[in-house]
Amino acid sequence: MKSIPLPAIRRYPLYLRRLKAYRMGGTLWVSATMLAEDLGFSSILVRKDLALTGLEGRPKYGFSIDPLIGAIEESLGWNNRTDAILVGAGNLGSALLGYSGFAQYGLEISAVFDSDPAKIGTKVQGVPVFPMEKLTDFIGRTHIPMAVLTVPAESAQRTAEQLEDAGIRGIWNFAPAKLKLSDKVVVQRVDLASSFAELSSRLKKDQT
Amino acid sequence: MKSIPLPAIRRYPLYLRRLKAYRMGGTLWVSATMLAEDLGFSSILVRKDLALTGLEGRPKYGFSIDPLIGAIEESLGWNNRTDAILVGAGNLGSALLGYSGFAQYGLEISAVFDSDPAKIGTKVQGVPVFPMEKLTDFIGRTHIPMAVLTVPAESAQRTAEQLEDAGIRGIWNFAPAKLKLSDKVVVQRVDLASSFAELSSRLKKDQT
Repeated sequence: MKSIPLPAIRRYPLYLRRLKAYRMGGTLWVSATMLAEDLGFSSILVRKDLALTGLEGRPKYGFSIDPLIGAIEESLGWNNRTDAILVGAGNLGSALLGYSGFAQYGLEISAVFDSDPAKIGTKVQGVPVFPMEKLTDFIGRTHIPMAVLTVPAESAQRTAEQLEDAGIRGIWNFAPAKLKLSDKVVVQRVDLASSFAELSSRLKKDQT
Repeated sequence: MKSIPLPAIRRYPLYLRRLKAYRMGGTLWVSATMLAEDLGFSSILVRKDLALTGLEGRPKYGFSIDPLIGAIEESLGWNNRTDAILVGAGNLGSALLGYSGFAQYGLEISAVFDSDPAKIGTKVQGVPVFPMEKLTDFIGRTHIPMAVLTVPAESAQRTAEQLEDAGIRGIWNFAPAKLKLSDKVVVQRVDLASSFAELSSRLKKDQT
């Protein structure tokens, strides 16, 4: 497989959404220029991004919309369901479980793990909560590749190591902590606190 | 005010959390080296970041913990409460309203706006939902500076323009869309879809 640069990968979800909206409206053909104008990107950029999927547009027509959607989803690995567990059923974890938007990316959270005895055996947003002691066994048995990490900062590193040892290969890290793991695990961080810090600071600077 | 570079600003929430944990444990003095080791940063980096707050450490002792926490919070503008509204009471919006972590940053969401008549007059996570028609008037009356934007991609640009016209100065944009606004508005984007796309793609690459 040709390796697609990350900046393009990060734009693909935007293209996908727009393409699906076009399709809902009955559009059959779409051009890079049309997408570019709609999204505020340059058309050269969009043309290059779409070419990376391996599809070729037809002169004057552009791209047939269904194959293009399929090619982008395949580039993202979203044509297959990705099974994941969520570790940490606190506020953020519960909030994310309630966010049905994940289903659009093929992300399916099949189990939740937490260390709080009061939560074990309950369900959060319909997903069962298991004790941390079952984590290693569960991952070993199901071969689930991905974990969404929403534990507090203090237990993030310890929990991440446990996930790595159990065989998890990708961690979507929402815990406000930098994880130190071997390069066998891919870590992708979403840091809401840093993002809000940046916004607050830019707003403050703007005021002075 | 001295302008603090964004990379430092983005690390401040990590320092804050760690410092508050130290304080809970009864620690009175803290050194840049100690913070650096705990967080996996270089001590030169942490030393520089802390110096940007304007505080000076005492040789051999380091920093007194309370003034250091105060100085970082002030640099972030988190010593004051930031009032905000949330626009879009869909899945992600409701999920974020349920995330009590925001309170730690001083972010207080006082009203929710939505276009769905079925939601108007109800409360989401205890916060009242108002119709979009009241948005401009509400912002004008309360002078609320910030909006959390969680509408669908299709209505993001239109809603953002309405927010700008009404006087909002900062938008925390969770909608999967690039906003085109004047430079009077600071936009900070959190793109969960792009983040997940990056993780999926890096995992896939890792497999091949």
